[in-house]
Amino acid sequence: MQVIPNKEQIELAHQRIQDYIHRTPLFTNQTLNELCGAKVVFKAENMQKVGAFKARGALNAALSLPHNKITAGFCTHSSGNHAQAIAYAAKSLKVPAYIVMPETANPVKVKAVANYGAEIIFCAPTQRDREATVERVRQETGATFIHPYNDSKVIEGQATAAKELIAAFPDMNTLFAPVGGGGLLSGSCLSARYFGKNIQVYGCEPEQANDAWMSMQSGQIEPARGLPTSADGLMTSLGDLTFEIIRNEVSGIITVTEDQIAEAMKFVWERMKLIIEPSSAVPLAALLNNRELFVGRKIGIIISGGNVDFSQLAFLKEPATQNEAKVNIYSSY
Amino acid sequence: MQVIPNKEQIELAHQRIQDYIHRTPLFTNQTLNELCGAKVVFKAENMQKVGAFKARGALNAALSLPHNKITAGFCTHSSGNHAQAIAYAAKSLKVPAYIVMPETANPVKVKAVANYGAEIIFCAPTQRDREATVERVRQETGATFIHPYNDSKVIEGQATAAKELIAAFPDMNTLFAPVGGGGLLSGSCLSARYFGKNIQVYGCEPEQANDAWMSMQSGQIEPARGLPTSADGLMTSLGDLTFEIIRNEVSGIITVTEDQIAEAMKFVWERMKLIIEPSSAVPLAALLNNRELFVGRKIGIIISGGNVDFSQLAFLKEPATQNEAKVNIYSSY
Repeated sequence: MQVIPNKEQIELAHQRIQDYIHRTPLFTNQTLNELCGAKVVFKAENMQKVGAFKARGALNAALSLPHNKITAGFCTHSSGNHAQAIAYAAKSLKVPAYIVMPETANPVKVKAVANYGAEIIFCAPTQRDREATVERVRQETGATFIHPYNDSKVIEGQATAAKELIAAFPDMNTLFAPVGGGGLLSGSCLSARYFGKNIQVYGCEPEQANDAWMSMQSGQIEPARGLPTSADGLMTSLGDLTFEIIRNEVSGIITVTEDQIAEAMKFVWERMKLIIEPSSAVPLAALLNNRELFVGRKIGIIISGGNVDFSQLAFLKEPATQNEAKVNIYSSY
Repeated sequence: MQVIPNKEQIELAHQRIQDYIHRTPLFTNQTLNELCGAKVVFKAENMQKVGAFKARGALNAALSLPHNKITAGFCTHSSGNHAQAIAYAAKSLKVPAYIVMPETANPVKVKAVANYGAEIIFCAPTQRDREATVERVRQETGATFIHPYNDSKVIEGQATAAKELIAAFPDMNTLFAPVGGGGLLSGSCLSARYFGKNIQVYGCEPEQANDAWMSMQSGQIEPARGLPTSADGLMTSLGDLTFEIIRNEVSGIITVTEDQIAEAMKFVWERMKLIIEPSSAVPLAALLNNRELFVGRKIGIIISGGNVDFSQLAFLKEPATQNEAKVNIYSSY
């Protein structure tokens, strides 16, 4: 469905999904405000269902289908948050989900999807085999394919995060969102236009995956460069629908280095006590490293997700040596 | 000041400190509620000023002093959150803080205290040298010594966390708090009695530092065993004032193993996207491993702090290799 969503469609999407998603909390940090000479409000989509904003778009796309289509379930190819979002949507509606993942996918992410009860179909780790596999699954099962970003209904759903932020922070005049495939950014642009007052929207991406920046310069969709980045959620390139919206609506694209991403992520973990994934640190990195451009502004930042693979963190796995393993309860009763 | 605080004193303390502290947010988790068959509400003192509830007690003790005493500043010995809390209180009131720390203190913690503008005085890593050094500093500077827990004014301040939780969750009937020196637990017991309706309060501590459990059994203050625990904030033993309150008010002491602490901490990081320190995972570990005792209950858990040394986490320090280090902004203006 390749139509740019209008205001009423986003309002309807918000109603449609409201029983299935969290109205996520907002956070501020005084040190950051002082550092930037600005007011910064974070929208914590890391605390959304499935740990990422993707639950919004997946639910809206799923719930917008006719009843018989919903019953047949959903399929997609993803090894990231979209996979969990589709699995969660299917579980919520008590229908099947079929998720195509590359054989090389992170076992932690595979397990997370499986925990929602989705059926996982492995494929070779190429775009071609992903697409062929999901097409075969679609034909065999009758499940509806839900694209991770280049879909009007997905964009409507993602737009509801910025809509909630604007409702809670009505004098916001600047909005930062990460850009990968562009679902969140294009939805944020639309909500800024429909529900905000003169909000400038900035898309933020890693220098290592600066395809949105290159696409804006060339005027056509450029492929991602395929360089390594910690912000692995932002390695995809834009779709034709997301690009059209972003090109018309965005005030700028800001790119940041890997060091800047790590620094911003550390700030949020250490100072704000929030677990965010590297992709979600990109907008704060963009602000921190261009502070002079945003002095005095009222800035919203969407924290897109918080799904981090903690199996890497040794201190969570190796507790101190201990003598006893029993549990004691002293009770005065 | 060795007096058990009454209701009015805790109410006054809350008014006294309210401009200097955050009314911290509450969080719930559906998976946890289903796992426990209970309703669990977390009070996020990890998001308090200085990243821990200790800001409450330090501010109340500081602000309760006569004006000329406040002007002369405060001193204490601590290498943990109390040190930051005293430094923050002094900074807030624009007076000096003198913090005695062992030479062996974690450099990250030393820096955190120094960042609040406190003067740090190093001592040998023995209790005797700590106390002698802080006494010398007190005499030389005229600063007032503020004890980390065994002080009525500190207990009044710590009590305000549970007071806020009860106000927001009035049908809470069970409260879990960690116990180290007992400032938070004794304050929580008093607020439960004064502001709640038949709340059972449980103190939670590592099996490796089960001095509160032993003290309740023997009826006298037992020293901590000095065994290693990841919950390093809970290694102190009770004071006479905190013990007196806890002995009279608490429904039980629950101890947990190091593995159980790590598991609970991982749950909060992974599922709730909150950074908590190991000491703060102890109450959740106590609940998770004694679920059958708390089915159907309405449980409050105070997350005491979120100060973790991230210098251990390699993935925050070593970003992916990168080609370029410049920042690009594409702007449509």
